[in-house]
Amino acid sequence: MSSKHQISTLFLTIFFLLILGCFASPRKNIRSRRPCKEMVFYFHDILYNGKNFKNATAAIVGAPAWGNNTILANNNHFGNVVVFDDPITLDNNLHSPPVGRAQGFYIYDKKEIFTAWLGFSFVFNSTAHKGSINFAGADPLMNKRRDISVIGGTGDFFMTRGIATIMTDSFEGEVYFRLRVDIKFYECW
Amino acid sequence: MSSKHQISTLFLTIFFLLILGCFASPRKNIRSRRPCKEMVFYFHDILYNGKNFKNATAAIVGAPAWGNNTILANNNHFGNVVVFDDPITLDNNLHSPPVGRAQGFYIYDKKEIFTAWLGFSFVFNSTAHKGSINFAGADPLMNKRRDISVIGGTGDFFMTRGIATIMTDSFEGEVYFRLRVDIKFYECW
Amino acid sequence: MSSKHQISTLFLTIFFLLILGCFASPRKNIRSRRPCKEMVFYFHDILYNGKNFKNATAAIVGAPAWGNNTILANNNHFGNVVVFDDPITLDNNLHSPPVGRAQGFYIYDKKEIFTAWLGFSFVFNSTAHKGSINFAGADPLMNKRRDISVIGGTGDFFMTRGIATIMTDSFEGEVYFRLRVDIKFYECW
Repeated sequence: MSSKHQISTLFLTIFFLLILGCFASPRKNIRSRRPCKEMVFYFHDILYNGKNFKNATAAIVGAPAWGNNTILANNNHFGNVVVFDDPITLDNNLHSPPVGRAQGFYIYDKKEIFTAWLGFSFVFNSTAHKGSINFAGADPLMNKRRDISVIGGTGDFFMTRGIATIMTDSFEGEVYFRLRVDIKFYECW
Repeated sequence: MSSKHQISTLFLTIFFLLILGCFASPRKNIRSRRPCKEMVFYFHDILYNGKNFKNATAAIVGAPAWGNNTILANNNHFGNVVVFDDPITLDNNLHSPPVGRAQGFYIYDKKEIFTAWLGFSFVFNSTAHKGSINFAGADPLMNKRRDISVIGGTGDFFMTRGIATIMTDSFEGEVYFRLRVDIKFYECW
Repeated sequence: MSSKHQISTLFLTIFFLLILGCFASPRKNIRSRRPCKEMVFYFHDILYNGKNFKNATAAIVGAPAWGNNTILANNNHFGNVVVFDDPITLDNNLHSPPVGRAQGFYIYDKKEIFTAWLGFSFVFNSTAHKGSINFAGADPLMNKRRDISVIGGTGDFFMTRGIATIMTDSFEGEVYFRLRVDIKFYECW
């Protein structure tokens, strides 16, 4: 009887510990800061400047009262809205075969220095990847590394969430920008 | 003593299995690809074209240098930004009583074919539904079915996430678009 | 033997209950509607109106065909796109030391009344907070309290999700708006 009692006590203790562990301390414990998936891509932005229509992958579509849609505005381009459809490559070569398209917009959003806000998707439709990854966030683009959010995904990236670290890999004047993106998914399904 | 020892061993085994199950294999196991909620809606976009102000539910508000804000631009409308406040209905009839409003923007984002990027909300304020569903994602609109992300929700849709499948149900010229949206929520609270 | 049998039965029962609890009823049970973190901030929007460039923190960058980028358009500003870089303060005083910047855009999206759609970030870089909080959602701004989604975060706000309740704390004509934001995080990492 004493043995059984001991066992029952042990039982109940473990039972309540598990209940506590699984349910009460809601989700912190079951979350890992180790990514469940990692990917690195480059994308290439060629901004329309009135003379490069054929090669351009991006265009100014909004500007403040003191600007226009052909040339980036004064005051660190504050208020310029740019729409883009940029090729995504696996390495830093603009002429590598694109594996997808980066599509969306950025907005220059500060008078005093260059900063931007991004809303865009990586769209894949190849044997390697099908589906899309959706991003949003602030891009203080003078910083070497900037983190934005992966806010969702579809297809191969169904319901993912994570962090994308953006680095300016190269730029030429105000026409060509090459960005490196390190994507770390922390929610995979 | 032997019996007690056996039981203790069994105990420990189960204990560690459960610990492993609940905590280590972080979240994959507790996620289901079965939706926790499904909804189907239609919404109706009537684009302002200079002559239909009264009926229009959407307007061009940004354009590339070669366009303007009255007529959709050449090059597959690349660069056009459209703001909308469209009625949501339960069936495909524009004149059915609206159950909410689809509010936000879309951007045509490719020179070579029609594609768009969407950021918008479904806003409900009726006895049936109160609250909002927030969407973002790429819309390759020449495809029959396109998936975007449900990135959040409020009210009745508190903290939801999911996938919305968009289908062009009908269109008339470049003025009227009717979209069917199948929403599958995979995170419900 | 009978005692051992009883214990084994109890064992199995508990085991299956736990398995069920942890894995089957997918995520509803482990979610709490109690916030894991709460914060209150104010931000201050001073819209450029052609005469206040020095103080302005926001500018019109898109307008419908019947508007322009200096003055908010007729029809409840329908179609106006505004980019902003607003100071964030801990209290409702515009002149308090800013603790961060609210950066992004809003779009007036209805002809009949004032409503908007928001996409923006809170960007912090101080000893108190480093990182960003990303927001998106519909803002029916004539309502006293409006809920939008926290769609992600970086740095100190790594992978967070939640609800932000926006209240118009004060406004002066169509130039100065002060918003109070109560952020409730329901997913913390």
